[in-house]
Amino acid sequence: MGSAPPGVTGLLDGIAAVGRARSGGYRRFAWTTEDPTLRDWFDGQAAARGLEVVEDGNGNRLAVWGAWSGNAGEDALLVGSHLDSVPDGGAYDGPLGVASSFAAVDRLRADGFEPARPVVIGSFTDEEGARFGVACLGSRLASGATTPERALALRDDDGTTLADAMRAQGRDPRAVGPADWLAGVGRFVELHVEQGRGLVHDDAAVGVATAIWPHGRWRLDFCGEANHAGATPMGDRSDPMLTYAATALAARRLAGDARATFGRLAVAPNGTNAIPSRVTAWLDARASDERELERLVEGIVDSARAAAADDGTTVDASAESVTGAVTFDVPLRDRLAGLLDAPVLPTGAGHDAGILASVLPTAMLFVRNLTGVSHAPSEHADDADCEAGVDALAAVVRELAG
Amino acid sequence: MGSAPPGVTGLLDGIAAVGRARSGGYRRFAWTTEDPTLRDWFDGQAAARGLEVVEDGNGNRLAVWGAWSGNAGEDALLVGSHLDSVPDGGAYDGPLGVASSFAAVDRLRADGFEPARPVVIGSFTDEEGARFGVACLGSRLASGATTPERALALRDDDGTTLADAMRAQGRDPRAVGPADWLAGVGRFVELHVEQGRGLVHDDAAVGVATAIWPHGRWRLDFCGEANHAGATPMGDRSDPMLTYAATALAARRLAGDARATFGRLAVAPNGTNAIPSRVTAWLDARASDERELERLVEGIVDSARAAAADDGTTVDASAESVTGAVTFDVPLRDRLAGLLDAPVLPTGAGHDAGILASVLPTAMLFVRNLTGVSHAPSEHADDADCEAGVDALAAVVRELAG
Repeated sequence: MGSAPPGVTGLLDGIAAVGRARSGGYRRFAWTTEDPTLRDWFDGQAAARGLEVVEDGNGNRLAVWGAWSGNAGEDALLVGSHLDSVPDGGAYDGPLGVASSFAAVDRLRADGFEPARPVVIGSFTDEEGARFGVACLGSRLASGATTPERALALRDDDGTTLADAMRAQGRDPRAVGPADWLAGVGRFVELHVEQGRGLVHDDAAVGVATAIWPHGRWRLDFCGEANHAGATPMGDRSDPMLTYAATALAARRLAGDARATFGRLAVAPNGTNAIPSRVTAWLDARASDERELERLVEGIVDSARAAAADDGTTVDASAESVTGAVTFDVPLRDRLAGLLDAPVLPTGAGHDAGILASVLPTAMLFVRNLTGVSHAPSEHADDADCEAGVDALAAVVRELAG
Repeated sequence: MGSAPPGVTGLLDGIAAVGRARSGGYRRFAWTTEDPTLRDWFDGQAAARGLEVVEDGNGNRLAVWGAWSGNAGEDALLVGSHLDSVPDGGAYDGPLGVASSFAAVDRLRADGFEPARPVVIGSFTDEEGARFGVACLGSRLASGATTPERALALRDDDGTTLADAMRAQGRDPRAVGPADWLAGVGRFVELHVEQGRGLVHDDAAVGVATAIWPHGRWRLDFCGEANHAGATPMGDRSDPMLTYAATALAARRLAGDARATFGRLAVAPNGTNAIPSRVTAWLDARASDERELERLVEGIVDSARAAAADDGTTVDASAESVTGAVTFDVPLRDRLAGLLDAPVLPTGAGHDAGILASVLPTAMLFVRNLTGVSHAPSEHADDADCEAGVDALAAVVRELAG
């Protein structure tokens, strides 16, 4: 590190090339070859600031400012986010929160601030669930929201289990599970780029989260009969592609003010001149309350079943992960909104903060996103807004760890 | 080879393990690692019968019974088919025609038959077009139905060109193009498993083809805007998946007695929690006449454009390959149907025989397929029907090369 600490976007430049595709988007999946490079960057940032790094059994990595052993009652302030991405994701979703945490340390130190309680910068593993299908796996395992048995048996598209993927990077899958260190944390504040235009409407660079909508992922397997695309009359077919197509349109019709998305598909055998035998489609659904979400998913699955009956196909639906509504700690939220004079707003996106909110007081700061685009290469926050986010996070650390 | 030649299904057993997937289906794409194994099998069968093998510049392989140099006027009888498969294809589509040709040689020799003109057993490269998207590439190149420039620039899903794929197997792409040896062929008879149940209805083990429906492949690129599946309201989306789904259902509605199939898709970025930026869908369409096919494809593309306008997306449609109607040589067809006392029937499936029919008198024999299933692991013809196919092909060789 030079003597003048770089701004947060300067820090992000340090990983700008990692997992970058021709599209300009990122592909940084958990336990892939990009992962050690990102961990090295994290370790380098910690070392440059004299912060010790520890990793828990789930792959979550923690850089510690101050004396902290992760024992009950130590009341540390946890900040941070994640470094992994969705396929073809943006540069900000995740890394902005980690880089802003290091930048906030620089800012506070430049001001001569010394924390009265430990500050821990976390980088949670596999927040996006892009490889193994379950989002927030690192925070879910650490907090006991999912079991090691269930997590370790998850498979990626190539059939590799999480257990094998961890072994391939020298980790012991037997160490996966609830993390003792959470007992030594008093509060968690995650900074994240906004995924929407709420702060544009509010004309504010930074906001404080009120809630995360309940959301989940469901896998729908549409099965039919493979056959020749030229020789099989339309009336003799059991084509699961048609059942899927009808279901995708039904989901759009039924969503209303909620969200229903089919963004991921697997078609077998996926040949131009073969009627498919199977179409697997992943439904991402979210709604402002849990009953509405349940009604939406039931409606979509009922439509799929009705279409399957017409098409002579079958459909199996199963939940891969479902996260209930999260309301962030109200006193903490109000305290931060007052401190920062920032607006409060809900989000339809899931976060590690949403998982940890069930085990400790948790808050989120959002940084304005002028286009609202996220999970795409064009995801962007202005440099000035990113620096405003660092200012806000530094103020929060001063307030909560001072 | 033992002293008793194996039946045709015994010959097929020799490649039963090549490219076989867990599903029981086959993945034998042109210029992949399966390809040299299949060529070795072909060469081994030729060598066991004392037949010389030559390969043209396109990768088409020929085993020659008798003296033949491929010069104009030599009037050889060409038989054979192809050894490649669709993804997760069956064991018969292609290989049955090649194996039956070798078995027919055995049968004729056992009867003491000596051909009066050369008999050439052909194995055409890349009939299915599974890797590079254009079907019948070997016969198209040999007959001049496509240009070397166009073919060599085709890319597989990994971006590898045909030229590079051929180089990787020691071939010189500069040798690709019209094949002189076709001038030395008088007629082509391709035996193939039926892809449909016409012969079941006719209660016959073997039939003779009348025509191939005009057919083609069109690529439709649906483009929208990637965004976050949770944070983006439904009304703010440009989701190309919805445009595709509407188009797939429109194709089903418009097909009528023709065929319209979307069996292959590529979704980008294909993440559960990301609205896609692009859905590429390949349309396989076929109809009994060319005007009907044109109307069908225009109707589907019009529907796609209308849906795109509603969805705020765009669609680009381009033909990847279009093959006009083929009516097989009528005198040859009638001669073979009379010789074999076999029914005549059309097909919706394309074949190398359909390509070569434009440059020389060509016929096809179909072998009964009890379920009609093809391009799928359950594709099957009974052993007795396969042997009946060999009997028929042997009779044809005796008739046309005697």
